[in-house]
Amino acid sequence: MASQTGPDQVVTVENPEAPGPFVVVCEHASNAFPARWGDLGLSAGQKAAHIAWDPGALGLAQSLAAGLEAPLVAATVSRLVYDLNRPPQSAGAMAARSELHDIPGNAGLPTADRVARTEAIYLPFHATLRALIARRLAAGQATALVTVHSFTPVYNGHHRAVEFGIIHDADPALARAVLAQAAQLPLISRLNEPYSAADAVTHTLALQATPQGIRNVMLELRNDLIATPEAQQAMGRTLAPLLRAALAEVG
Amino acid sequence: MASQTGPDQVVTVENPEAPGPFVVVCEHASNAFPARWGDLGLSAGQKAAHIAWDPGALGLAQSLAAGLEAPLVAATVSRLVYDLNRPPQSAGAMAARSELHDIPGNAGLPTADRVARTEAIYLPFHATLRALIARRLAAGQATALVTVHSFTPVYNGHHRAVEFGIIHDADPALARAVLAQAAQLPLISRLNEPYSAADAVTHTLALQATPQGIRNVMLELRNDLIATPEAQQAMGRTLAPLLRAALAEVG
Repeated sequence: MASQTGPDQVVTVENPEAPGPFVVVCEHASNAFPARWGDLGLSAGQKAAHIAWDPGALGLAQSLAAGLEAPLVAATVSRLVYDLNRPPQSAGAMAARSELHDIPGNAGLPTADRVARTEAIYLPFHATLRALIARRLAAGQATALVTVHSFTPVYNGHHRAVEFGIIHDADPALARAVLAQAAQLPLISRLNEPYSAADAVTHTLALQATPQGIRNVMLELRNDLIATPEAQQAMGRTLAPLLRAALAEVG
Repeated sequence: MASQTGPDQVVTVENPEAPGPFVVVCEHASNAFPARWGDLGLSAGQKAAHIAWDPGALGLAQSLAAGLEAPLVAATVSRLVYDLNRPPQSAGAMAARSELHDIPGNAGLPTADRVARTEAIYLPFHATLRALIARRLAAGQATALVTVHSFTPVYNGHHRAVEFGIIHDADPALARAVLAQAAQLPLISRLNEPYSAADAVTHTLALQATPQGIRNVMLELRNDLIATPEAQQAMGRTLAPLLRAALAEVG
């Protein structure tokens, strides 16, 4: 494992030379609030909650990357400091409100701070991912992109029945093939639930896969299903062969 | 003018802080063959010809950028070393043949060389452009992208009647508005001629504008119309107000 670290490091890359046909990405892997940006005025409870990160997603992504022999590109900063799955002009990139919570440190954020976070977090994260993908493509290496997320079972007071969401951007082929494969799982699996591209949640796919013409899909697991390291490991072991089969089908 | 230079510099940025609503890009601005990559076995005539660059495009882009009060991002390396309007996996990124000419230095290019050129040219050029756009978007600055190209009057022995080509990627709005404005010009103007997105010539738009949801258009001028600095200046002065009017129309 080659992992990049440092006080200003916003991204880690595990197994950059891994030979499998996928690149795994986890934009909401971390609920860390580096000193440079402070804790945004959040309570300990808020910093631990799903508004700050996707609980379980990193462990799942690591297990999935292992099963796929894939590089893993993961964030090391909370999505509330910068949401790496949002473009810099969107309100959600540095959200002043998330679900039921105000984010004090993001309220009325000055332009200079928006630009500084974009430069410090968004640009290097996506440049790292872009370079990894471009090197593979230049070398003629088969490459598909899978992003790994989790969602809360209860949102704005409503219970979500869906357990496994499979979301696509402009090219639905891989997502549809994953959905077909998911029929064998004991999970409630749905295409484009609990979100879809219409909710502006496919920025990473749109930025990193669609322009390069590579297959791509966003996976969303309900976070109560991946609440422990053991559950994350098991889910990754379950999903890896399913993704391989889906990709083999669509090419 | 803030211009970046140096032996390994593959991109220049003029007027990065310019306040106008456009960012101007010229991927095929240069027919330079830096020593690092050599001259690819080309004759002096081939290096001066349209296969190596878009003659006149840089002068036009500079005049247009001045008229639009826009930053200009331009390449300083020939498209035959790396074509910045192509993704790294495409044959055209480091073409072994262009129109009627073999490119000896690109024939059977080893994987390591393809990766090295991608890392040295494609990645920094597009990272520079991406950062410039992202900073503007984070600051809430209105931003549209225009790429400036020229095409040869005779291609593969066929004369091209079109004089001004206006080409779009996924979002045709700005291109259509430019076409409507172009009706006032004494030019034969056409949408998606002599190329279109179907010919894979809109990579920069697809990479730098479509995912960010910003308006974008690719301009192609027949190079006999912009053969002198005076003609380039004049064409830029003509097109700048037309682009401003088109953008004002589509928002």
